Amino acid sequence: MYKEMTVEIITIGDELLIGQVVDTNSAWMGSLLNDNGFEVVHKTVTGDKAENIVSAVNAAGCRADVILITGGLGPTSDDLTLHALCDCFGASLRFSEEVYVHIEKIFSRRNLTMNELTRNQALVPDKATVIRNEAGTAPCTWFERDGKVFVSMPGVPAEMKWLMTHEVIPRLKKRFRQDLYIKHDTCWVTGYTESALAIELADFEKRLPSFVKLAYLPQAGIIRLRLSAYSRTSEEAETTLAALRKELEQRLHGQINPEGDKDIEVLVGERLRARGQTVGTAESCTGGAIAAALTSVAGSSDYYVGGVVSYSNALKHKLLNVSETDLERYGAVSRPVVEQMARGALRVLGCDYAVATSGLAGPGGGTAEKPVGTVWIAVAHGDDVVSNEFRFSNVRDQNIRRTVNMSLLMLLNEMRDRQP
Amino acid sequence: MYKEMTVEIITIGDELLIGQVVDTNSAWMGSLLNDNGFEVVHKTVTGDKAENIVSAVNAAGCRADVILITGGLGPTSDDLTLHALCDCFGASLRFSEEVYVHIEKIFSRRNLTMNELTRNQALVPDKATVIRNEAGTAPCTWFERDGKVFVSMPGVPAEMKWLMTHEVIPRLKKRFRQDLYIKHDTCWVTGYTESALAIELADFEKRLPSFVKLAYLPQAGIIRLRLSAYSRTSEEAETTLAALRKELEQRLHGQINPEGDKDIEVLVGERLRARGQTVGTAESCTGGAIAAALTSVAGSSDYYVGGVVSYSNALKHKLLNVSETDLERYGAVSRPVVEQMARGALRVLGCDYAVATSGLAGPGGGTAEKPVGTVWIAVAHGDDVVSNEFRFSNVRDQNIRRTVNMSLLMLLNEMRDRQP
Repeated sequence: MYKEMTVEIITIGDELLIGQVVDTNSAWMGSLLNDNGFEVVHKTVTGDKAENIVSAVNAAGCRADVILITGGLGPTSDDLTLHALCDCFGASLRFSEEVYVHIEKIFSRRNLTMNELTRNQALVPDKATVIRNEAGTAPCTWFERDGKVFVSMPGVPAEMKWLMTHEVIPRLKKRFRQDLYIKHDTCWVTGYTESALAIELADFEKRLPSFVKLAYLPQAGIIRLRLSAYSRTSEEAETTLAALRKELEQRLHGQINPEGDKDIEVLVGERLRARGQTVGTAESCTGGAIAAALTSVAGSSDYYVGGVVSYSNALKHKLLNVSETDLERYGAVSRPVVEQMARGALRVLGCDYAVATSGLAGPGGGTAEKPVGTVWIAVAHGDDVVSNEFRFSNVRDQNIRRTVNMSLLMLLNEMRDRQP
Repeated sequence: MYKEMTVEIITIGDELLIGQVVDTNSAWMGSLLNDNGFEVVHKTVTGDKAENIVSAVNAAGCRADVILITGGLGPTSDDLTLHALCDCFGASLRFSEEVYVHIEKIFSRRNLTMNELTRNQALVPDKATVIRNEAGTAPCTWFERDGKVFVSMPGVPAEMKWLMTHEVIPRLKKRFRQDLYIKHDTCWVTGYTESALAIELADFEKRLPSFVKLAYLPQAGIIRLRLSAYSRTSEEAETTLAALRKELEQRLHGQINPEGDKDIEVLVGERLRARGQTVGTAESCTGGAIAAALTSVAGSSDYYVGGVVSYSNALKHKLLNVSETDLERYGAVSRPVVEQMARGALRVLGCDYAVATSGLAGPGGGTAEKPVGTVWIAVAHGDDVVSNEFRFSNVRDQNIRRTVNMSLLMLLNEMRDRQP
């Protein structure tokens, strides 16, 4: 495996250490860096203490060639990144007229009044290249030392994303000759435990070229299988992965989805759009999570018409016309009820496919015959409806996420089986 | 500020470095550790390479007293944590009959067949204390060196959570004398920019005792203000924070919510349950995200009746009785439409309060008068309805999250203004 320019990400903030905020920035950055051929080898999270920031930056400088730092650039006194970087690089803060004018412009556009703290955001280290942040007030700064690059960005996701895309990645590409091509190819596999799948693929894994890595990522009822090629040429990476993927598809026929790099809600949307069809939802235990997943995708109004969250039994009857007798006889978590929900949604919402869920997400409400984690899912299309029972775990958010994934998987299967 | 026993968290997995998976484990752990008086000073993410795991573990051993490691314990060949830990501590793997019997029991309960890879999960380092993992097959192992503790746990969230709660925290409490009490007190503030709030509170901040820290966390339209006390006695921490909180409440009267440590959907649920009232939703641009937020809370069926995701205009008319003339005259993103949605939801869903949203989440669909980020929110109760227009950003997921937060905030304000 080739060893080339490597990246370390440092995220700064006490809120990350005490668990008040989940760090989603570094995952987004890792994905973008990979797509551009830069390998992330390490991530560090440290708190709002200048001495800890200094030692994190110095340690990272020993491990990686490029160190990307986010956070700690706000106007308040707990924001210490620039002071720490001045320590690291023997720099001092200077007032930048250019940054100040930019901040003023942003404030006047938003009808906000400047104050002395905002003015402080125009203080930048004198040994850094200052990169304008079009998405916000805190500037981005770029340091070099011993052939290594250190970049400081704000932690606000929209600002970091703008800077990474428009400034940092293009500058890194100019700065470092690129000899490494990284390509990932991910597919989903269903119907296996992780170890059973690993045994099934043992000889496949043994025969992999040395520059290819295989990883198993089990996740809410689906195992993602990722092949990663680290190669000198994009051709080698691509042809190798294409051949390996073909082999996987033949071996795991019927239990594999080759477009596993996409989120399942994105794939559902693409399929529906290509066929000119629509979907609607009737949710009980998922409580709107399927609708929220589908509509998280831009342009989803092209194929998602809407839905009903029939959390109470009364609304299952009133909005979806589920039989009150059946609700009483079989209970809400049952095949007759979930199928009637799906058929009712098809009628009420006027869509081509309807997905319905009813289950016990927990932690309370389970019985001996219907323990927590029991979920019924139905998909209706025309006069047909298919339904399945699942037994998930006793953890509420896990049960909801698994039900969302399995519902969309059942919808994909139904679409595949019924070419329009 | 007192310096006591410190913790570092190491999470292992290439999927975290390349950004395929967001690390939520370490945030959860950080929060639990803090609640138990343990301070997390550093987090490290490293990939599935034995040498990198070894150096991460050794480096952590120089920084912290307790090192908690998650991930890399699965049955497949990319799982290398135990091999790396054997390297670090000069240990070898031995077969544990006890662990094997436990794995067998789990497999037979789930009707799965054991295979050779599963059998390998019974291999444990001979220099470690083995802690049974009741939530899964991979065991937890506990090492000691030079008075420091290293614990390895699976990365599967449900398993890690079970082990942390039932085994690791109780054992750490026995092992380390606890002289530090950490207490956080978080409130929300609305209606300020971050810097304006910091200026408003400048003298308050200057007068803070040396063992108290203040942090500003802006987040989707709300600024969370966190006071953290690190003290020798729980009394000192608590009385100090109580006095400071009272001062904040007086200063920021009307723009502060003191229960900021709770997620807003939890707070809404508590208020509704206390009053014996119910809520329903009528969502357009949020596409089910408000419903999903409300139902993510266990027991939400006590106060959440259900909702309608009227993504298309046709469904706004059909399900919520929004006037077709008004939809045409004012457009879906308008005061008349969102108010009719809220009133319609109140009627159709039969709830005490209804929340309705209609806006342009983007990125497409904006015009000069109604740019992307324009959102109308209405809350209806009895014969009354209040509505507000917002201008958010041009980033879809940010707009959806802000709309969810602002909708629930408007609902809280309505409830406060109308004592039942």
